Amino acid sequence: MNAPGAPAAPSVQSAAAGQAAQRVHASFGRQTVMAAFGARLARVEPGQVDIELPFRADLCQQNGYLHAGISTAIADSAGGYAALSLFEAGEDVLTSEFKMNFLAPADGERFLATGRVVKPGRRLSVCQVEVHAYRGLQATLCLVGLMTAVRVTPR
Amino acid sequence: MNAPGAPAAPSVQSAAAGQAAQRVHASFGRQTVMAAFGARLARVEPGQVDIELPFRADLCQQNGYLHAGISTAIADSAGGYAALSLFEAGEDVLTSEFKMNFLAPADGERFLATGRVVKPGRRLSVCQVEVHAYRGLQATLCLVGLMTAVRVTPR
Amino acid sequence: MNAPGAPAAPSVQSAAAGQAAQRVHASFGRQTVMAAFGARLARVEPGQVDIELPFRADLCQQNGYLHAGISTAIADSAGGYAALSLFEAGEDVLTSEFKMNFLAPADGERFLATGRVVKPGRRLSVCQVEVHAYRGLQATLCLVGLMTAVRVTPR
Amino acid sequence: MNAPGAPAAPSVQSAAAGQAAQRVHASFGRQTVMAAFGARLARVEPGQVDIELPFRADLCQQNGYLHAGISTAIADSAGGYAALSLFEAGEDVLTSEFKMNFLAPADGERFLATGRVVKPGRRLSVCQVEVHAYRGLQATLCLVGLMTAVRVTPR
Repeated sequence: MNAPGAPAAPSVQSAAAGQAAQRVHASFGRQTVMAAFGARLARVEPGQVDIELPFRADLCQQNGYLHAGISTAIADSAGGYAALSLFEAGEDVLTSEFKMNFLAPADGERFLATGRVVKPGRRLSVCQVEVHAYRGLQATLCLVGLMTAVRVTPR
Repeated sequence: MNAPGAPAAPSVQSAAAGQAAQRVHASFGRQTVMAAFGARLARVEPGQVDIELPFRADLCQQNGYLHAGISTAIADSAGGYAALSLFEAGEDVLTSEFKMNFLAPADGERFLATGRVVKPGRRLSVCQVEVHAYRGLQATLCLVGLMTAVRVTPR
Repeated sequence: MNAPGAPAAPSVQSAAAGQAAQRVHASFGRQTVMAAFGARLARVEPGQVDIELPFRADLCQQNGYLHAGISTAIADSAGGYAALSLFEAGEDVLTSEFKMNFLAPADGERFLATGRVVKPGRRLSVCQVEVHAYRGLQATLCLVGLMTAVRVTPR
Repeated sequence: MNAPGAPAAPSVQSAAAGQAAQRVHASFGRQTVMAAFGARLARVEPGQVDIELPFRADLCQQNGYLHAGISTAIADSAGGYAALSLFEAGEDVLTSEFKMNFLAPADGERFLATGRVVKPGRRLSVCQVEVHAYRGLQATLCLVGLMTAVRVTPR
């Protein structure tokens, strides 16, 4: 992974995208829950953000799989930051709503949440989110979802 | 709150409901994430379960409010256990899907998630979930949701 | 039922609520699909709207029950107009998103969709919707849902 | 379009897929609402089904766009039949739940709903659905959604 604040592929990103990626990294750094979980930004591109979470035995449901709320948390942040990556400086993002379908138990050594903006909007952005569980190189899609992110503009 | 394993109101519950409540408490006790968050079962009745979570500064999003994934996590467990409270001994519950609308920032000293079974089913149970944020005695509804819980029967 | 444009209970409604009800009736009258289905406004109160639809054999799915899209259509209009009933003159409503859970086959002689605003907002209003199927006096809850309605202000 | 009952690309489909496509066409033919709307199956492949609907002025909301319930209806049928296309003979499909996000007004001369199975299951299949509005050759994505289809087995 790149150092915090460094875009994934600076050579192909515009300066604006690079600054947006910095804002994503800065905001992610203020989400105390991501540090508490040990999650990190694995990719920040315009309209797409990936978050990686190593398995944690203390974040599980009753059968030892990652709790649905945890896979949801990284999916929500991935989607929200995918939206934020397309916003202007000074703007913030809030989640209006999301819907998650759980396709398989979140059973893996690490989890990769991907958020992608399907429809950017002046006010509302709709994002698709996914979480894959990895065991070695084998990936299992365990969550697909849709969310609405709200652009918050400074008053 | 009652001791773990003790139903909320044993005198008005049938023996079957009391045993179901015990199963809810036992399963909740195996959800490591609930202990990690400091969440506890506040009420277990047939078809309705409440979970309480004191505010934690390490479970927040970028503005210092509880992260949407955390309010979702307690709502999901409340809904799932509301379903489980109506199941037979030996059965387990999994979340198939949920949808959450965030009505207000999760800004409070403590949070109460309520899950209620709207439609119990042989296979699928549909539950309504809510989370209120409390500041002193003032409650703010910050999440409403719908979820589908799956009954898992032993093979 | 009342004549179009007449509020359900004018004596207990304020003038503003009565005018809002008139706007709901007027907008409903422009929804060609509601006339095509034979649906009608059964109740318009501030923050709550009911729509009734008699069974139609030509609006069914493969087993002769009302198609999920049709029960959704009246639920969506009920929720949207519940939101509109709280808006100002000149404003319009659009559906941003909804989520529907189908609890039982839509098997009845008539269907009553109810929309209720859970959280009115300056921009986004969240509504709960339900559809009951009636056979004689017996009502079966066949749909519960959540939707986000957007306030559209004239430019 | 192919004649009813004829699979879209028989030469590349197995006999089983061809028979599944026939079952989709037969079930679609029993959905009276699809005939009432003038909708038709535009593609039936294993795990993916498209439904086309020409614009109808009598199926609109208050601004003359296709009503959200109508685009939802064709999306729901497309997703359900995508699931059915992977089922065995004698099995049927029901919708458990869906969630739709509306990205743009359903403003077009015709609409194409696409349903695709993301996760087939013994009991529950999760499908992604989309609706594009066409004006001439220009397509606008106006709906994205997720749904859960239930496999109904004969008793």
